[in-house]
Amino acid sequence: MTYTPATQDQLLAIRVNAGIEELAQSERFAAAEPDMVEAIVSGIGEFAAGEWAPLNRVGDLEGARLENGTVHLPDGFAEAYEHYVEQGWNAIAGPVEFGGQGLPFTLSCNVLENLGTANMAFNLLPMLSVGAMESLEHHGSKELQEKYLPKLVSGEWSGTMNLTEPQAGSDVGALRTTAHPIEDGEHAGKYRIKGQKIYITWGEHELAKNIIHLVLARVPDAPEGSRGISLFIVPKYHVEADGSLGKRNDVRCVSIEHKLGINASPTCVMSYGDEGECIGELVGAENRGLMAMFTMMNNARINVGNQGVQIGERATQQAQMYARERIQSARAGSPDKAPVAILEHPDVRRMLLRMKALTEGARALLYYTAGQVDRGTLGNDDAKARGEVLTPLIKAWGTDIGIEVASLGVQVHGGMGFVEETGAAQHWRDSRIAPIYEGTNGIQAADLVTRKLGMDGGQALSGLIADIARDAGDEPALAALAADCEAVAGWMRDEASLDDRLAGSMPFCTMFAVAVAGWQLLRQRRAIGDSDSAQATTKTATVRFFLDRIVPEASGLRAAATAGAEPLYALTAEQFVG
Amino acid sequence: MTYTPATQDQLLAIRVNAGIEELAQSERFAAAEPDMVEAIVSGIGEFAAGEWAPLNRVGDLEGARLENGTVHLPDGFAEAYEHYVEQGWNAIAGPVEFGGQGLPFTLSCNVLENLGTANMAFNLLPMLSVGAMESLEHHGSKELQEKYLPKLVSGEWSGTMNLTEPQAGSDVGALRTTAHPIEDGEHAGKYRIKGQKIYITWGEHELAKNIIHLVLARVPDAPEGSRGISLFIVPKYHVEADGSLGKRNDVRCVSIEHKLGINASPTCVMSYGDEGECIGELVGAENRGLMAMFTMMNNARINVGNQGVQIGERATQQAQMYARERIQSARAGSPDKAPVAILEHPDVRRMLLRMKALTEGARALLYYTAGQVDRGTLGNDDAKARGEVLTPLIKAWGTDIGIEVASLGVQVHGGMGFVEETGAAQHWRDSRIAPIYEGTNGIQAADLVTRKLGMDGGQALSGLIADIARDAGDEPALAALAADCEAVAGWMRDEASLDDRLAGSMPFCTMFAVAVAGWQLLRQRRAIGDSDSAQATTKTATVRFFLDRIVPEASGLRAAATAGAEPLYALTAEQFVG
Repeated sequence: MTYTPATQDQLLAIRVNAGIEELAQSERFAAAEPDMVEAIVSGIGEFAAGEWAPLNRVGDLEGARLENGTVHLPDGFAEAYEHYVEQGWNAIAGPVEFGGQGLPFTLSCNVLENLGTANMAFNLLPMLSVGAMESLEHHGSKELQEKYLPKLVSGEWSGTMNLTEPQAGSDVGALRTTAHPIEDGEHAGKYRIKGQKIYITWGEHELAKNIIHLVLARVPDAPEGSRGISLFIVPKYHVEADGSLGKRNDVRCVSIEHKLGINASPTCVMSYGDEGECIGELVGAENRGLMAMFTMMNNARINVGNQGVQIGERATQQAQMYARERIQSARAGSPDKAPVAILEHPDVRRMLLRMKALTEGARALLYYTAGQVDRGTLGNDDAKARGEVLTPLIKAWGTDIGIEVASLGVQVHGGMGFVEETGAAQHWRDSRIAPIYEGTNGIQAADLVTRKLGMDGGQALSGLIADIARDAGDEPALAALAADCEAVAGWMRDEASLDDRLAGSMPFCTMFAVAVAGWQLLRQRRAIGDSDSAQATTKTATVRFFLDRIVPEASGLRAAATAGAEPLYALTAEQFVG
Repeated sequence: MTYTPATQDQLLAIRVNAGIEELAQSERFAAAEPDMVEAIVSGIGEFAAGEWAPLNRVGDLEGARLENGTVHLPDGFAEAYEHYVEQGWNAIAGPVEFGGQGLPFTLSCNVLENLGTANMAFNLLPMLSVGAMESLEHHGSKELQEKYLPKLVSGEWSGTMNLTEPQAGSDVGALRTTAHPIEDGEHAGKYRIKGQKIYITWGEHELAKNIIHLVLARVPDAPEGSRGISLFIVPKYHVEADGSLGKRNDVRCVSIEHKLGINASPTCVMSYGDEGECIGELVGAENRGLMAMFTMMNNARINVGNQGVQIGERATQQAQMYARERIQSARAGSPDKAPVAILEHPDVRRMLLRMKALTEGARALLYYTAGQVDRGTLGNDDAKARGEVLTPLIKAWGTDIGIEVASLGVQVHGGMGFVEETGAAQHWRDSRIAPIYEGTNGIQAADLVTRKLGMDGGQALSGLIADIARDAGDEPALAALAADCEAVAGWMRDEASLDDRLAGSMPFCTMFAVAVAGWQLLRQRRAIGDSDSAQATTKTATVRFFLDRIVPEASGLRAAATAGAEPLYALTAEQFVG
């Protein structure tokens, strides 16, 4: 096995940060009782490390290949996906009426965490399917749900999200794909879709028997911009009335990207309606597609933040193993000059503890966020609002620390880290996409200082900071950081212009995320208590590192968060170059 | 042209930070008068951007290939190297008596900066040759110098440094390559070398007519560890008495690494003496090889720090160009909703200005360091000591910001940044080696808090901080950071154990480097004055960004720098994993 699933730390975070026991007291999540949770967490950990992890390196080396319109994955992927479906892992959080287990989002996060730690590129296949399921569940008609959800829930079919076009990236409203209503014939009531979409993750492959594309497009005479966008389902194969697969729809993959990382995940250019025969079905109402898409994007953002935890865990374990085995140089000042494992050198310990503390901090933030989302599902509006405040934090900071931890992993390996055979470099390359997709981290930070800052008259955000301050207790650095966060939030609300807020958005997002992560780690440590179990010893060391070294660093961002926009506009576009 | 050479900013740094006019007042560097300096800086910039930059992408794509013991580079490299040699760029800082121009190290830095901005992987060929030249110049006999230096200085021959063996990386003293004295025959007085070296940059290629390998090895009965290491010259082709090339020496490249980046630079496994006929010549005295090697390593470390500036400049320019051309989304709050160039969005401006400020800050630090080295060459011992204090700062922080800037460059490109065709990803991959080779950044930081901290009874380091504090004037953040640096230095000297110092070494190294870079940028701004030239406007904006946002961030590292080693040792090696 290439790594050990972080089962114990995941269970701790699920218990303390997500508060699973409280969730299980609700009727809806009653199935999430302790034995079930433990079975899921240890089961998926074992499955992922055993069956998906061994495909990580070959997936990087050989990658996905497009031949004659078909995407091929290296040997082993098809079987590993089949086993995943057979064992029911895809159905964890799916709706019960369509064959799902209806368990909390918290546990779906855990399934994704384990799969992605094993194989980040492969895990994008179920991740994208989750998005397709959620938008159908919340916005599809009963008929569409019955037609598509059962096999999406089981994983026999997979799903994709089709937003981006060359001129429409972050600005989804600029898209030009069209959808014309069909008035009669066998497809009456449906739409003819025409256009090209780029960056479509797992847009084409043969691991699932059908692919359900969720496609944003414009109907005739739709309003300009984001208010004129509708959402359509475009299946790769038409689905007959009896549920069997019919003929192929007019959609194809025309090329796949040559990327920096996640090479086993085919990133497709998809062409819809080259022959005028691409048939799509409307999800929700015309011109309300963006809202339907954003439903699925909210949790998708949390799932991308999760990828930072995944790569962090994998990189940390790999570096730890190397640092225990690699013998080099004596301890500084040692009398006997005997070379030691590099893990014994202070700066290597610093790197490893930083990797561990950042990863566990991001995990604590992830499950805290997931728990709030689940409470929102149960009807708790305050928790729902808090989940929305937390979403940009886990997405942006989670993915940023993913890169940092993977980079430290390369550094711990020294020269070996730069050689591809070692595998440390792959984690770093793979990690680089996460701050970009599903809304760039800049867009997350903008969301934080615009929509989220003002929610509930500012209470959603400031209430969270107040909770941190209250719990900080005898941790002066955390208390100081909470005060810094509130000072920045207050300045942004009371004094700053919109541009000022945006200018300080990213440093604020980082410092705020560190404050929440530090707080949630502190809650873990307090929950474990002062026992001398191995877990308590390790957690205490990690939390101390986080609170004493990483938290004060975040306070150093306060000046940048409040420096305002004017200095950024001192240069004209021309003066920027040269 | 793929980018514009940063000629104006380089000239500013050479004038203000290196103080070239003062250097030119010495007899030794009299040739470095303003016209000459300007001719070199603009000439090498034009040559590099014109001839070397176009090979950067093909060098990455095709890379160096080993076939039947010969390393092949893509088409164009041989001609581009030939032109470089013909135009005399390799000889800028070489000794006059061997055909060099004897100009200051400052100008050799500039030649390397421009070549490396154009093509980081290719530039390693001249960079490594510089090291070989310097150790011959300082430690070789007159005979060896006459035999090897003229063609090394011209660039007709290239040089390599052979330290690392599988078990001897950071711990050079653990090496096992042997050297047996030859008592009679045609090679009497020379040595028979046997062993294998790894990570040998440009260890084999056909761009130069001969390759002069500098190899560390042990003579029989040498003391253990680093006091038993000797330095040898092993030419690829023997050199006859008349200077012509003789038969091939028994040294060969047995494999090259498959790396994360710098693919055009062949990283070789070199085998010496497979047939027992590898002949080497001793440089300096037996068992004094490490000292001779360190001579060349000191400036080599500065040259590696320079690579951070190079990749920073290239990545910044590429991101700026993209951000001016890419139209996406309206300005937040704009009434007309017209999409704008992404450079107009506040957070994109923040990223670009951060890239620019970090790059120019590292450049200011680079040339300040180079100027101190040149003063040391002129006999100024205080400047020599200061240059030694600055060396780990530019090596570690310079290479760290190289990665950060390249990463921001990927981020500015959004999804396009993750697609290899764009080229932004290559800069990021290339940048990752620099914190590893030529002494990992952890080793730089260790050097700072051990040897450098105590130099001249602490005065070398604290005198530098005092100069920053004195000049900070009305810049409160810089004054505060200088005070933080002195507080950390004082704690390290007076209270901390050796382990405590090492535990805080990396955060201290970073905050100290930011302080010096901020100070040197401030000196640039003051030197330019308040004119409304384009350069003054740009520089003012960059320096403001650095002092108001980056400097306060560095103060946030003080807690980590003084947190001590004990918390890092709270875990046993076993507890680290899992």
